[in-house]
Amino acid sequence: MANVSPGEELLKLFERFVLDHSGKQSQKSLYQPVDYILALGGKRIRPVALLLLNKLLNGHPDAALHAAYSIELFHNFTLMHDDIMDASDFRRSQATVHKKYGLNAAILSGDVMLIDAIQFMQSAEKMSSVGGLTDLLLRTAKEVCEGQAMDMDFETKPVVQLKEYIEMIRLKTAVLLAACFKTAALISQRPELAGELYELGISAGIGFQLEDDWLDYYSETNVFGKVFAGDIRRGKKSGLILEVAEHLEVPEREQFLLAYQGESDTDKRIRFVEEYLIKYQIRDRLKLRFLNYKTNSFNLIQQLKVSDEVKMQLTLFIQQILERKK
Amino acid sequence: MANVSPGEELLKLFERFVLDHSGKQSQKSLYQPVDYILALGGKRIRPVALLLLNKLLNGHPDAALHAAYSIELFHNFTLMHDDIMDASDFRRSQATVHKKYGLNAAILSGDVMLIDAIQFMQSAEKMSSVGGLTDLLLRTAKEVCEGQAMDMDFETKPVVQLKEYIEMIRLKTAVLLAACFKTAALISQRPELAGELYELGISAGIGFQLEDDWLDYYSETNVFGKVFAGDIRRGKKSGLILEVAEHLEVPEREQFLLAYQGESDTDKRIRFVEEYLIKYQIRDRLKLRFLNYKTNSFNLIQQLKVSDEVKMQLTLFIQQILERKK
Repeated sequence: MANVSPGEELLKLFERFVLDHSGKQSQKSLYQPVDYILALGGKRIRPVALLLLNKLLNGHPDAALHAAYSIELFHNFTLMHDDIMDASDFRRSQATVHKKYGLNAAILSGDVMLIDAIQFMQSAEKMSSVGGLTDLLLRTAKEVCEGQAMDMDFETKPVVQLKEYIEMIRLKTAVLLAACFKTAALISQRPELAGELYELGISAGIGFQLEDDWLDYYSETNVFGKVFAGDIRRGKKSGLILEVAEHLEVPEREQFLLAYQGESDTDKRIRFVEEYLIKYQIRDRLKLRFLNYKTNSFNLIQQLKVSDEVKMQLTLFIQQILERKK
Repeated sequence: MANVSPGEELLKLFERFVLDHSGKQSQKSLYQPVDYILALGGKRIRPVALLLLNKLLNGHPDAALHAAYSIELFHNFTLMHDDIMDASDFRRSQATVHKKYGLNAAILSGDVMLIDAIQFMQSAEKMSSVGGLTDLLLRTAKEVCEGQAMDMDFETKPVVQLKEYIEMIRLKTAVLLAACFKTAALISQRPELAGELYELGISAGIGFQLEDDWLDYYSETNVFGKVFAGDIRRGKKSGLILEVAEHLEVPEREQFLLAYQGESDTDKRIRFVEEYLIKYQIRDRLKLRFLNYKTNSFNLIQQLKVSDEVKMQLTLFIQQILERKK
C-alpha cells in the first residue's frame, strides 16, 4: 500500500471542507463564481502549510481548518481580481472568472470572497480563543495589495532593480505563506515561534518565486499549461531578466532593459536575452540565489525550538514546495 | 451668529479626521485614488449619523471617530467598484476613479479601502473594548454585496416585483445606515438599544431611497448634477416604475415592464411612462409609501428608551436626511 504523507491527508481534509462550504449560498450570481474558482483546485500550498504546522504543534484542529479556508479564500480573491488586471483568459487551463461570468461578477464575487475570508478568520479566532489572527490577516492583505500595486507600477517603469523586485514578491507572494505559518503558531499557543516561522515563510516564499522565474526558461520538464519562456514572451521584467541587469554596470543595465522592452518581435526578444543569459552564466547565478533562500529556510527550521520530528516534517514540506513535487 | 447644529460640528470633526489620514501612505499608485474619492466629499450621512448618536449617548468619542471613518471607507469602496460595474464616468461632477486612474487602479484601490475599513473598525473595537463591531461590519458588507448582485440581476430580469426591489435597497443601502446606528449604540454601551436603532436605520434607509426614486421624476428643484428622469432615461426599473407595475394586474404588469424596457427612444419612453404615472396617481402613491417609512422611523425614535432630548435630536437628524436639507 502506498505511503500517505501527512500533507496529503490534510489536503484531503481541506478539500472536503471546501466542498462542504460550496453551493450553499442562495444568491447564485454572487457565489457561483466563488465556487467555480475554488473548484479549479491547485496545490493548496498555503492551507496545507497552515494545517500541517498546526498539526505538528498540536493546535486546535477546527480553528486551523477555518483559518486555512480563510487564507485560501483570500488567495483566490487576489487571483480573481489579478486575472482582471492582467487580462488573463485562462487559469489552470480553464476560463478565468471574468471571462466566464463577466467583469462585474469577477469584481463583486472577489469582493465578497475577501469579506468571507475575514469572517472565517474571525471564526478561527473565536474557536481557538487566540487574539490577533484577524489583525494579522488584514495586515497581510494590505501588503499583498501593495505588492500587486508595485507589480503594476513595474510594468510602466523602464528600469527596476532586483532588490525592488524581491521586495515586490515578498509583498505579493511571501507574506501570505509567512502569515500561514505564523497563524498556525498562534493557534497552537506557541507565540514564541511566531517570529521565526514568519521568517521561514518569507524565505521559502521568495525562494519559491525566484525558482519559478528560473523555471520559466530553464525547466527541463514540460509542465502542463506552462509555455517555454512565457515571461520573456510577455516582456516581463522577471527575476531572470533582473538577474542579468544586476550583473551589468548602470548605463549598460538601462540599455539592456530598454532594448528588452523595446523589442516587439518575441523570437528576437528571446534570442536577445539568451546571449546575455549565456555570457553572464545566469542559469547558475539565479539558481544560486534561490538556493540561498532555500538553505536559509532549512537553517531557520533547524533553529526552531521544536522537536526533531517537527523539524523533519517541516523540512520535508518545504522541500516538497521548493522542488515542485507533490 | 449662525446657529451651528451638532451635525455640522461633527461633520467638521470628521472631515478633519479624513484629511489627517490622507496623503500619508508611501505607495502613491495605490492610495492616491483612495484620497481622491474621499476628497469628493458628499454629505457624509453615515459617519455623521454614527457620530451624532454616539455623542447623544455619551459613547467613546475616538472609538466612534474610527468606526465612522471605517464606515465611510467601506461606503466609498462600494462606490469605487459600483462605478466600474455601472460604467459611470462621473461622480459628483468629477471623473470616477476608473476614468481618472484606470480600471486596474479602481479595482485594487477599492480592495485596499475595504481592508482599511475593517482595520479601522478593529481599532474602534479595541479603543472602546466593545466586541462585535467588526463582525457587524463584515455581516453588513456581505449584505451590501448581495444587494449589489440583486441590483445587477434585475437589469437582465424582465419582471421585478416591488417587494424584491425593496429587499434589494434594504441590502444595498439601508443596512449600512442601520449598522451606523447599531455601532453607535454598542460603542455607547447601550446594547439594549441596538435592535431598535438598527430598525430605525433600515426604515430611514429604505424611505430615503424610495424618496430618491420619487425625486428623480417629481423633484421641483434643480439639484446640481442630477438630470430630470435620469432613471427612466437609463431604462431603470426604479421604485417609480415598480410602483406603477404594482397597480397593474399580472398580465398587464408584464406587458408594461416589457414595453418600458423595449422602447429604445428615450423621449418616447418618458411619455409612455407619464401616461401611467397620471392614470395611477403614482405621484401620491409613491409619496405615501416613502412617507410611511418616514413615519415609522419617527415612531421608532419615540419608542426608544432614551431622554426626550436624544429623541428630539435624532428626529431632527432623520428629518434632515429625509428632507434633503443640509
